[in-house]
Amino acid sequence: MVKFAVLGCGVVGSGVVELFEKNKALIEKRCGQSLEMGYILDLRDFPDRPYGNKVVKSLDVILADPEVKVVAECMGGTEPAFTFVKSCLEAGKSVATSNKELVAAKGDILLQTAKEHNVNFFFEASVGGAIPIIRPLHKCLAANDFTAIAGILNGTTNFILNKMIKENMDFSTALALAQEKGYAEKDPTADVEGHDACRKICILSSLAFGKHVYPESVYTKGIREVELKDVELASELGYTIKLIARVQRLENGKILPTVMPMVVEEDNLLSQVNGVYNAVMVRGDGISKAMFYGRGAGKFPTASAVLGDMIEEVQLDHTIPSQTWENVNSTDFIEDFAAFTAKRYVRTTGAQAADLTAVFGQLTGTTLNTADGETVFITDTAMNAADVSAAEEKLAAKGIKVLAQYPVLVS
Amino acid sequence: MVKFAVLGCGVVGSGVVELFEKNKALIEKRCGQSLEMGYILDLRDFPDRPYGNKVVKSLDVILADPEVKVVAECMGGTEPAFTFVKSCLEAGKSVATSNKELVAAKGDILLQTAKEHNVNFFFEASVGGAIPIIRPLHKCLAANDFTAIAGILNGTTNFILNKMIKENMDFSTALALAQEKGYAEKDPTADVEGHDACRKICILSSLAFGKHVYPESVYTKGIREVELKDVELASELGYTIKLIARVQRLENGKILPTVMPMVVEEDNLLSQVNGVYNAVMVRGDGISKAMFYGRGAGKFPTASAVLGDMIEEVQLDHTIPSQTWENVNSTDFIEDFAAFTAKRYVRTTGAQAADLTAVFGQLTGTTLNTADGETVFITDTAMNAADVSAAEEKLAAKGIKVLAQYPVLVS
Repeated sequence: MVKFAVLGCGVVGSGVVELFEKNKALIEKRCGQSLEMGYILDLRDFPDRPYGNKVVKSLDVILADPEVKVVAECMGGTEPAFTFVKSCLEAGKSVATSNKELVAAKGDILLQTAKEHNVNFFFEASVGGAIPIIRPLHKCLAANDFTAIAGILNGTTNFILNKMIKENMDFSTALALAQEKGYAEKDPTADVEGHDACRKICILSSLAFGKHVYPESVYTKGIREVELKDVELASELGYTIKLIARVQRLENGKILPTVMPMVVEEDNLLSQVNGVYNAVMVRGDGISKAMFYGRGAGKFPTASAVLGDMIEEVQLDHTIPSQTWENVNSTDFIEDFAAFTAKRYVRTTGAQAADLTAVFGQLTGTTLNTADGETVFITDTAMNAADVSAAEEKLAAKGIKVLAQYPVLVS
Repeated sequence: MVKFAVLGCGVVGSGVVELFEKNKALIEKRCGQSLEMGYILDLRDFPDRPYGNKVVKSLDVILADPEVKVVAECMGGTEPAFTFVKSCLEAGKSVATSNKELVAAKGDILLQTAKEHNVNFFFEASVGGAIPIIRPLHKCLAANDFTAIAGILNGTTNFILNKMIKENMDFSTALALAQEKGYAEKDPTADVEGHDACRKICILSSLAFGKHVYPESVYTKGIREVELKDVELASELGYTIKLIARVQRLENGKILPTVMPMVVEEDNLLSQVNGVYNAVMVRGDGISKAMFYGRGAGKFPTASAVLGDMIEEVQLDHTIPSQTWENVNSTDFIEDFAAFTAKRYVRTTGAQAADLTAVFGQLTGTTLNTADGETVFITDTAMNAADVSAAEEKLAAKGIKVLAQYPVLVS
C-alpha cells in the first residue's frame, strides 16, 4: 500500500481527492497496488467533506510518514510552494504539481533536488491542463530532435478571442463575460498580458531543449490591443487571430521563444481550437508534426493530469532521466526577439496595390479594401521588427499609415 | 551500456536504425545511459548500408546476448512475428512493436508473457503511427474512467475521402492516386474495407477497457461504397464523411466498437483531419475530451514511436502495470451492433417535408432538395439499424426510396 498527500485543498486539490475517490478501483488496478489518500495540507478545515478528517496543518506530519510516497502540490504561487516541494523531495517523496509559476521559476532546482534524492518532480498538469503533453514530449517523442512548438496555452484569452471572432464582441465585453463565467480572474493581468502562456512555453522549451528558459527571457505580448476590426478582417482573408505561445530553433542553433497574438491560417488545426480549449503543436525530425488538444484548465481536467503523474510515480522506483533540464546560468542559447521573422498581416490607411508592392514586394492572396477606406493584406516576405519599421517609414513617405500588423504563424 | 536489436529491416525497421543513428547523442542523454544498435535480423543482406555488418540471420544470436535489453519488432504479420516476440519476452528482453496485426490478434498472450518475465511488450507504434496515444491512455489519463474513443486511424482511406471531398474525385480515381503515391497497397483490401482501422480500435478498446477485443467482434464496414454525391451533399449540410473507428461504453456497461463511414459535423476537429494524418479523440470523466493528432504512418513517424518505447524501456526495470489487458475468454462485454444508435444522414428520392416528418419526426437543420430531384437531410432522432429498416419500409409505402444513409458521429 502506498499513501499520497495533497498540499492545498482549493479547486485543483479537491479535484484530485474527489476524482481519486470516484475512480479508486480503476486507479489501483492501473497502479498495480492499493493507494490511499493520507493527508490534505490546508490552513482551513473542511468538516463537512468526507475527507475532512484527513486535513493537517503542518507539512511535518506528511514528511514524517514513511508510507507517503508521492505528494500533489496544488497550492499555486512560488512560496511557500517551493519550500514545501523541496522539503518533500529531500524527504524522498516524489511530487506532482499543477503549479506552472513554480515550474517556470524553479523547475531547474527542483528537478536537480529530485534527482539527488532518487525521486521525481512531475508537472504534467502545469501545461495544458488535462492535455498529455509533458510525458509525450520527453517519453513518446524522445527520439526526436525538436524544431518548434506552438500552442494555444491560455484558455481565458482563447475564450475572449473566440467571442470576438464568432460573436463580434469587442475585447472589453468579452473579458467581462469571461470574468462573469469564472474563466478570468478579477485581475486578469496574468492571462490577458500573456504571462500565463509565457510560463507554459518556458516549461515546454526547457523540456524540449534541455536548458531552463526563464519567463524574463521570453518576448511576451498579450491581447489587450487586439481590435475587433482586425479579427474580422483577418477572417475575411482566411486567418484567425490567436494568442500563440511558441518556440522555434533557429539555424544558428539558438532557440527563440515568443508569446504574442498571431494570425493563423484557417487550414491550420490551431485556428480551430475554440473556447477554453488548449492545443500544442510539436515539430520534430521523426514525427514531422503532432498536435495535442484538450481542456486547458478546470477542476477535474487538471486533477486528471496530477493523478496521472501520481499513478506513474507509484509504478516507479527511480528518477526518470528524460524528464529534466539544466540551469546553464546563461541566456546565450536564447535568440533576441529582434531576430524573429514572419510574414505579416497588415492593415493600413487606404493604399494602392503599386505602393504596397513597391514596399513589400509580392503579397500573398487577396488584398482587401474595406468600406471605410482601409487596406488589408498579407505579405509574402518574412519580416523582422526592423523590416516592419522600415516598411512603415517608406509607407509614411507615401502618406500611408500602418494601423495594425500581426505576424503569421508557421507551425 | 544497453544494446537493442531490430527484427525486420523494411521501411519501419530501417527507419528505427536511421533515426537512432541520427539522434544518438540526444537519445542517450534522454535514456540516461549509452545505447547501441546490436543486431538486425533479416533474411536479406544490406552490404551497402552503414549497418550492414550488424545483420544476422538467426534470432538465437539475439536471444543469447545478455546485453540486448530491448528488441524492436518491425516485421509485420502474425507469424513468425508472434513466435519471435514471445521468444524474446521469454528470454527476458522487452519488445517494442509497430505490428498492429500482432497486437490485435495476440496482445493478451504477449502482455501476459511479458508480465511473467518482468519485461514489457510495448506497442505505441501500432496505432496512429507517430501519434503518442498508447502511453497517454494508460499513463497520463490513467485516473479516468473512459467512456468513448473515436478516431481516424487509417491514413489511406482518409487520403481517399479527402480527395473526394476537396477535389471531387470519385472513389476509384482517388484509390488509384493513393496507390500511385504509395499510400495504398496494390491489394488495398485491408485499408479500404476497414480491417486496418479495426485492428487499431481493438487495441485502443482493449487498453481502455481492460479486456481483449478481437477484430471478429467489431462491426466493420469500409469506404468502397461511399459515393461522391454523398460526400458533396453532406458537405452542403455542414458535415464531412470520414471512416471512423470508434468504441463507446453503453449504459449497460458493455462496450460497442465499430468501424464505418460516418458523417462528422464541421465544427468537430476530427472533420478537419486531412490527408494521411490520423487523430484520436478520447472521452473520460476527468478530462471531458482530449484529441491526439499526427502522421498515422510512414518510415520516420513510425520509427519515432518504436524508439520512444525503447527509450522508456531502457529507463525501466519492471513491467508497467497500467499497460495491459486480459483475455476474458468471452465477448459478453461487447454489445451487438444491433444496439448501435445514431442520428442519420439520409438521401432519398424526391420527398415532401411532411412525408419525412411523418416517418422521422423532427429533422435537424436544413433539408436539401437537389437539382436531380433527390432529398437529403439529417434526422434529429437517434436510430438503430432496425429503426432505419422500419423507416425505409414506411417511406417505400409512400413511393420514396432511401438511396444512402450514414450515422452521425457524436464524439
